[in-house]
Amino acid sequence: MRQRSSIPIFALALQPNAATPLFKQIDQGIRHAIHTGRLNPGQVLPSSRALATEWCVSRHTVLEALDQLLAEGYLESKPRSGLRVANVPHLSRQPTSHAALLPSQRHQKLHLPQEPRVYPPPHSWAFAVGVPALDEFPKRLWQTLTKRCNRNLSHLHYQSPTGLPELQRAIAGYLQQARGFVVSPEQIIITNGSQHALSLAAHVLLEAGNTVGMENPGYLGARLAFLQSGLEPVPVPLDADGFDVAHLRRHAPQTKLVYISPSHQFPTGITMSLARRLTLLEWAKQQQAFILEDDYDFEYRYNSKPIAALRSLDDSGRVLYIGTFSKVLFPALRLGYIVVPPSLIEAFWMAILATTRHLPILEQKVTATFIEEGHFAVHVRAMKNLYLERQAVLLQAAEQHLPETAQCAPSQAGMHLLLRLGQNHSETQLHDHARNAGLLLESYAPFWLGTPAEQGLLLGYAAPNEKAIREGMASLGTIIASNPRGA
Amino acid sequence: MRQRSSIPIFALALQPNAATPLFKQIDQGIRHAIHTGRLNPGQVLPSSRALATEWCVSRHTVLEALDQLLAEGYLESKPRSGLRVANVPHLSRQPTSHAALLPSQRHQKLHLPQEPRVYPPPHSWAFAVGVPALDEFPKRLWQTLTKRCNRNLSHLHYQSPTGLPELQRAIAGYLQQARGFVVSPEQIIITNGSQHALSLAAHVLLEAGNTVGMENPGYLGARLAFLQSGLEPVPVPLDADGFDVAHLRRHAPQTKLVYISPSHQFPTGITMSLARRLTLLEWAKQQQAFILEDDYDFEYRYNSKPIAALRSLDDSGRVLYIGTFSKVLFPALRLGYIVVPPSLIEAFWMAILATTRHLPILEQKVTATFIEEGHFAVHVRAMKNLYLERQAVLLQAAEQHLPETAQCAPSQAGMHLLLRLGQNHSETQLHDHARNAGLLLESYAPFWLGTPAEQGLLLGYAAPNEKAIREGMASLGTIIASNPRGA
Repeated sequence: MRQRSSIPIFALALQPNAATPLFKQIDQGIRHAIHTGRLNPGQVLPSSRALATEWCVSRHTVLEALDQLLAEGYLESKPRSGLRVANVPHLSRQPTSHAALLPSQRHQKLHLPQEPRVYPPPHSWAFAVGVPALDEFPKRLWQTLTKRCNRNLSHLHYQSPTGLPELQRAIAGYLQQARGFVVSPEQIIITNGSQHALSLAAHVLLEAGNTVGMENPGYLGARLAFLQSGLEPVPVPLDADGFDVAHLRRHAPQTKLVYISPSHQFPTGITMSLARRLTLLEWAKQQQAFILEDDYDFEYRYNSKPIAALRSLDDSGRVLYIGTFSKVLFPALRLGYIVVPPSLIEAFWMAILATTRHLPILEQKVTATFIEEGHFAVHVRAMKNLYLERQAVLLQAAEQHLPETAQCAPSQAGMHLLLRLGQNHSETQLHDHARNAGLLLESYAPFWLGTPAEQGLLLGYAAPNEKAIREGMASLGTIIASNPRGA
Repeated sequence: MRQRSSIPIFALALQPNAATPLFKQIDQGIRHAIHTGRLNPGQVLPSSRALATEWCVSRHTVLEALDQLLAEGYLESKPRSGLRVANVPHLSRQPTSHAALLPSQRHQKLHLPQEPRVYPPPHSWAFAVGVPALDEFPKRLWQTLTKRCNRNLSHLHYQSPTGLPELQRAIAGYLQQARGFVVSPEQIIITNGSQHALSLAAHVLLEAGNTVGMENPGYLGARLAFLQSGLEPVPVPLDADGFDVAHLRRHAPQTKLVYISPSHQFPTGITMSLARRLTLLEWAKQQQAFILEDDYDFEYRYNSKPIAALRSLDDSGRVLYIGTFSKVLFPALRLGYIVVPPSLIEAFWMAILATTRHLPILEQKVTATFIEEGHFAVHVRAMKNLYLERQAVLLQAAEQHLPETAQCAPSQAGMHLLLRLGQNHSETQLHDHARNAGLLLESYAPFWLGTPAEQGLLLGYAAPNEKAIREGMASLGTIIASNPRGA
């Protein structure tokens, strides 16, 4: 009779037609009763038969719920006395505020001075920066290769952290042919885009709190990766020859890492002179420092063969070379690589094992095939011609629609131009208006560490087709004309 | 005449039939002459016509080489005086030792106490730990879905750092149905396996130098991720109820993060009791700390429904829940997830942007489809039945082939058993012999922080088929019998 008295406690509002099965409703009901103190430790439960009768369900349903509660320790079974509520501590019910959950201080150093690039395909690609001509990507061919590479699905187990050997070999061959330096495939560490390469290198090469010399203005992605890894970016100014090594020596003599984009500096487009390259290499040797060379768009050089990489001048192993497929295939592919000296292969191997283990396989296989069968060379050549045409269209449209105080100079390389703005324009104002009008151009200021020395807007010309470039420029012209400074 | 005198300097051993084109051979020859000081700054070059005659090549070939050297700054053009060698600093030729390139001290804290798992499919899967039955994976179906998901290739541009929305939704639905907790899809951060989730969480939640409470023995991958992020693992012993919260309070009172695998502790297999779970949750609230719950193989529970997740008991947002598809689909897929409180979504978004930007898309799409069309539930159910059978085979074979001093207890969950070894065996010796015999079992010692309290071997039973289990056990029995301690 003692047990029976506890039945009313269990009055459960069971709903036979609900999506949640009855045994689960019972399980949750009892669980809740224990947590909230309606049922207390030591209380003996009625028999499963009695509960089934009370709740108008089958005994099997009751037993299913009770078994689970037993297995989880909410109930305990004592010989001859049936099931009892276990000695479960109550959960304190103090109100908790999720808003009080703060990330670490080191994480809070990360911030993005510019909204990230859009994810869904936009109405028009004018003037997305750093995005290749996605409309011209050979989708059919890529799909065919994907289908073929997917045929035997032989890579189900964990793979090598440093990348699929086929892709390492294909890239080694490509670098030798396109960049003229010979490396063994094992030195090529496959990464999840250049962002991943930057992040790994920062950790493998430097201690938290170390300084890293960065071009100013410079690439935001690199700054984010370095901050995330606990490094302190030191801005180094650029002159016509590029990165000012003497400034670095004077102002940050302890620096052990320099990040540069010598082939086509991002975002100014400056090509680092040979003399300056050699000076930088000397600095690295003397200082026992490292250089991270980001060669993100070397394929797109219009007046000559690509400029020789800094890496190909180096005989000390102190230049780590970063490449990406985001600019020559497509960004969502998430494949890049970093070429490291033999003595650091193991360190990168371990860093990847500790952070992501390895990358998915299919994309690596398809990319290796795309390169090895020669499609890559064909695609790069076609895009190079296309982008040169598109740059000409942009320059012509700019001359037609923009005032003399806002013009861009032609460039012998790359996928974007810098539109320099005179003092009678407000960069912020123009950027905001242009973004509101659907133009994907980027503001120049966020790329500066500290106060920008000049105003400007970045205009990508690789992604938009000619019509989009012309229409976008007409729209930008109207915005500039109707927004004089202080208006 | 002055110019002409310099021609002999340029004697180049050109090879018309070599793979390297002639213009490139000329380019490299001049470049080398400048670097090594055979050509000096200010020296005037002969005319291209004269060089072409001297070298027996077309003038066009010479011009192609000179143009490139001009573009890169090796040569400079002066009006009326033709081309001159530019003022290029010599590269110092001091011998440099690549072996001197050391990774950072923080990186050197990482080490692997056990060789990593093999990459090519082995002869036999006995007794690979943490590997599902790859032979039983529905490859055909997966290939069909991949083909379908690959059809429109619509995701070429950068995508959301926190994951493909379809997959976030599919996982939210799966967690609600299988784990009984309701989260919005945005709270599910898609990661490159659970390793990536651990690495991100360590950075987002803690400062470098902070302690993290870890089960001892515990998961090696978590220890690696924490070390890589600059954390200091504190070993916390286990008793029959699991993680000893009181020990943590006493010995590391400042700890702000605990990593646990409460459903099925890795590698001991202990299920954390309900009372202990609630004690741990109370600790987290009082301490304003976080809990990382690694629910890596909750699907494989044989005697009851899966044990309720710690996450489902938590009302404070302090439990971050990690899941993986490595154990239920296949490891090389590289997909996992971490469920975070709404107030931390942005921090994870930023951490991913800074380190890998986002994951490849195709695998995410296929996995989302696999879940949504119900194949996932079917596969998990089939594997659960299969693994229970395989465990029985393993236990039976162990009884037949192993001595009483080396036996494993049955387990109600998971994919491996712990073979405890008495003092008359040497774990190291047996492990080495077994590995040499092609058995993929793992040594127990590396999972301990500090001195192991007991000896053992880990035997995975999910990957090998019945034949492989029986043969592997016979082989292990022979090894144990012929290797008494000290032999």
